[in-house]
Amino acid sequence: MARILDGKQIAADIQQEVRERTTAFEASGIHFQLTVVLVGDHPASATYVRNKQRTAEKVGLKNTLIHLPGDVSEDTLLAEIDRLNADTEVDGILVQLPLPSHISEQVVIERIAPEKDVDGFHPMNAGKNFVGLSAVWPCTPAGIMEMFEREQIDVAGKHAVVVGRSNIVGKPMAMMLLAANATVTLCHSRTQDLAALTRTADIVVAAVGQPGLITAAHVKPGAVVVDVGMNRVDGKLMGDVAFEEVAPIAGAITPVPGGVGPLTVAMLMKNTVRLGCARRHLS
Amino acid sequence: MARILDGKQIAADIQQEVRERTTAFEASGIHFQLTVVLVGDHPASATYVRNKQRTAEKVGLKNTLIHLPGDVSEDTLLAEIDRLNADTEVDGILVQLPLPSHISEQVVIERIAPEKDVDGFHPMNAGKNFVGLSAVWPCTPAGIMEMFEREQIDVAGKHAVVVGRSNIVGKPMAMMLLAANATVTLCHSRTQDLAALTRTADIVVAAVGQPGLITAAHVKPGAVVVDVGMNRVDGKLMGDVAFEEVAPIAGAITPVPGGVGPLTVAMLMKNTVRLGCARRHLS
Repeated sequence: MARILDGKQIAADIQQEVRERTTAFEASGIHFQLTVVLVGDHPASATYVRNKQRTAEKVGLKNTLIHLPGDVSEDTLLAEIDRLNADTEVDGILVQLPLPSHISEQVVIERIAPEKDVDGFHPMNAGKNFVGLSAVWPCTPAGIMEMFEREQIDVAGKHAVVVGRSNIVGKPMAMMLLAANATVTLCHSRTQDLAALTRTADIVVAAVGQPGLITAAHVKPGAVVVDVGMNRVDGKLMGDVAFEEVAPIAGAITPVPGGVGPLTVAMLMKNTVRLGCARRHLS
Repeated sequence: MARILDGKQIAADIQQEVRERTTAFEASGIHFQLTVVLVGDHPASATYVRNKQRTAEKVGLKNTLIHLPGDVSEDTLLAEIDRLNADTEVDGILVQLPLPSHISEQVVIERIAPEKDVDGFHPMNAGKNFVGLSAVWPCTPAGIMEMFEREQIDVAGKHAVVVGRSNIVGKPMAMMLLAANATVTLCHSRTQDLAALTRTADIVVAAVGQPGLITAAHVKPGAVVVDVGMNRVDGKLMGDVAFEEVAPIAGAITPVPGGVGPLTVAMLMKNTVRLGCARRHLS
């Protein structure tokens, strides 16, 4: 039976460390601030945002929610972002996705000042990460790398297969694993014989949004399996990995819930402090 | 015996098309200009630059060489780039690498205006490419993709293994193949059992700078083998692929010289026109 990688516990450790940093800075009168922009009333988004705000509170970040109506114009949203970019008290700006279809997500992402882009989605940050310059990485892959480190899972020289090629998870995950000296394969919907490829992997990261896609037949005995999926099936949260059948084969596995999700939120806090320190020239 | 992919001929076709475009624009009084900046007297660099200038001439691009002494200060070079960025007659700026060690290549790359960055090395262009927005891709991988298209080598659903992870070839190559729906594996110096991985590949791209690294044992019968290597061995140009033993096994293969090299130069010309059209709002 696989070792269960307890994302909740690791996230709590990260949060504790962030809390210690914010407390130390508070003593010097410095308060980092995360501003979340929520457009409309998408119920899942509202839940995510509440969760982020609660965690920000817990780790000692000032946090502000800007809640705009679902029919807000793109121009009004952009003006709001301009205001936040100019506000010297704001360290991190997060615009909760998805946005209503009349607003271009790409235009919005590119409007956020790269030095306040806690999600690491701005092309300038993506490009710096890509070429190996230090920038903020998207929170989900960053959280997974942090977990590997804390759980002493050495990725150097290992074969990692990433299933899914989103800009938010799959592609940056591949680049982070590569930077850590893993051999990396990127699979996706057009991949032929996925199981044959994932079976060669020492590390499998599943990030496609298909409940139970990764079965026992996809996994080499002893492999590390990371499940990024967050699929609602009959009101129940399910990952991309068929946990019950994969757990007995894998060497280590993240559960859903309680795996990657909490890590993502914890990294958002860590990214905010990192950006705040950089912008305010603190070490 | 593999089909030989004649990079020289494909490059000539691309050059011909660029020539037709520049001729058409000339009729409207528009002359695109490529400016090459060469620092010092590195003999290989001088050869590359001469070759680029000659090709630019041939395809009807105005081309200017700015040759600075090897001990030029970084500030003077940056001031020169600023001048070129501001010059409305300049469509593409190429700073020949490598630069002398007292100059930061990254600082120089980031100083070139992204809209004149014919090499596609600026982080903003790398980031746009990474997230799937249309930007200029580095010339070598762009030339290889162009060759695949012209030689009717369909990469969608194929397993492509890229050996080498440079910012100039390996990483952008992987991203271009991914965008064209290939399943992509990135290998490098830390990869364990390279041959086992490349043997699973439908397409192998070798870009490491190790003469003869890819042998018959690395290649699946019928695979497409692309050799980016340009290694001087006893005064002779050799690729990363042991051509004599791989050619009988492969389905198609690029020779060295006469393969990827001419494609890279041709794409530099195509990129210059593309940037010129975009900047001057021409279609």
